[in-house]
Amino acid sequence: MQKYISSFQNPFIKQLLLLQEKSRERKKTGMFVVEGEREISLAFKGGYEIISLIYCNAIYTETVLMHLINQPIERIEVPLEVYQKIAYRESTEGVMAVVKSKNHGLNSLTFKSKNPLLLVAEAPEKPGNIGALLRTADAAKLDAILIANPKTDLYNPNVIRSSIGCLFTNKVATGTTDEIIHFLKEKNIQIFCAALQASKNYTEVDFTSGSAIVVGTESTGLSDNWLSNSTQNILIPMEGEIDSMNVSVAAAIIIFEAKRQRKEN
Amino acid sequence: MQKYISSFQNPFIKQLLLLQEKSRERKKTGMFVVEGEREISLAFKGGYEIISLIYCNAIYTETVLMHLINQPIERIEVPLEVYQKIAYRESTEGVMAVVKSKNHGLNSLTFKSKNPLLLVAEAPEKPGNIGALLRTADAAKLDAILIANPKTDLYNPNVIRSSIGCLFTNKVATGTTDEIIHFLKEKNIQIFCAALQASKNYTEVDFTSGSAIVVGTESTGLSDNWLSNSTQNILIPMEGEIDSMNVSVAAAIIIFEAKRQRKEN
Repeated sequence: MQKYISSFQNPFIKQLLLLQEKSRERKKTGMFVVEGEREISLAFKGGYEIISLIYCNAIYTETVLMHLINQPIERIEVPLEVYQKIAYRESTEGVMAVVKSKNHGLNSLTFKSKNPLLLVAEAPEKPGNIGALLRTADAAKLDAILIANPKTDLYNPNVIRSSIGCLFTNKVATGTTDEIIHFLKEKNIQIFCAALQASKNYTEVDFTSGSAIVVGTESTGLSDNWLSNSTQNILIPMEGEIDSMNVSVAAAIIIFEAKRQRKEN
Repeated sequence: MQKYISSFQNPFIKQLLLLQEKSRERKKTGMFVVEGEREISLAFKGGYEIISLIYCNAIYTETVLMHLINQPIERIEVPLEVYQKIAYRESTEGVMAVVKSKNHGLNSLTFKSKNPLLLVAEAPEKPGNIGALLRTADAAKLDAILIANPKTDLYNPNVIRSSIGCLFTNKVATGTTDEIIHFLKEKNIQIFCAALQASKNYTEVDFTSGSAIVVGTESTGLSDNWLSNSTQNILIPMEGEIDSMNVSVAAAIIIFEAKRQRKEN
């Protein structure tokens, strides 16, 4: 299971590049690429199947990963000039992996808690924002994060990078807005939409029973469908000159207020 | 006071580029460049002196700014090809301004409130993080934001851009860590350092008297000087797999908890 590939023209190397660059290729093959020791470790711990490990001996000296994943998987060594071409990051660690995609359907979601705390983000576009939401969801140990009407592939290298691997530590599900609203109602989970209309201050809302905090994009907010199915709209009072907040900052403020209330109870 | 400049070689155009690119040039001349109508308006409202307005009639049709700033300032029209060269942003609005720097010394700070709420950031490097902190400070209407041992020029175009103009809506002061600690102690303002050592959960701390929330960088945290002068170290409990939080997200969570406590009181 040990190979050495030194040619840029090798079909495996070509596919690796395609998997990084093309969402279509990731969907077609059900595989994606993870770069960096920590990220690969988190994917492995998160139950993702590692298909191949690609490493460059000139950069990667740690054997942690090799021991962690002690299954018979394909290990491919490449020389520095090949690694530099396939590495997506500027400061890279000399190791990447081809990983099998997971099912992120709503049917894959189960909750340990009777009163789950969820984050729903509708149509987030910027990979950096999605990554930041995933980091916050990990820190707060949310029961799940749901992406409604996704516009960006979860396995986009910039989502993985900006989440610093938190894509793999969270339960993540995707679906249409309709499907997610149906799912939440069926499970009796309250829907708190971050919106300006008919809103209560977020500190005046009770998040202690099962709750979904729903955020839209900075530019367009949430769709009407969310607003007409909202248990209660909530807002963070803006006291300065500017009327918008970064979506990941707003989500974090509301999520940690919910955590605070739940600790007090 | 109306000029038309069509040559890339014009000394004014050359200096404009230097002011955008070089912190040294900004310090030497005491001037900097602001791009975009909203940002220029906020700078003007924030008491900054506008020295010149540079605009391109092919892109900029609004006259809001021209009416807002009804002082006899220099107005320079440039053709599209010149504007595209001097514009820093990709999607630009066709208007920029040369603006006079302000004094950001600690001696410039006065507080209306008897119990001010301040944010201190030690040595933040990434312009995007500084911009995000400034946005949060504006939303929370903090009494001031203080940058200790600054590593990045406040007038860096990326700070202005990522703050979406909140650099101008906040009271911002800079100083060494020593100077700022001295300043806070002299004013009897509590020092709450975000740190892992000897820390209390941030929700268990009383922020209702004069308080400074102090955050370091994600990579190295706060210097010993802060920690040994801390009234109380505070932390946000991290319950997931990851042990670090984005500095602007962490600051926002703590700041809005302080705001919540102050509203309850």
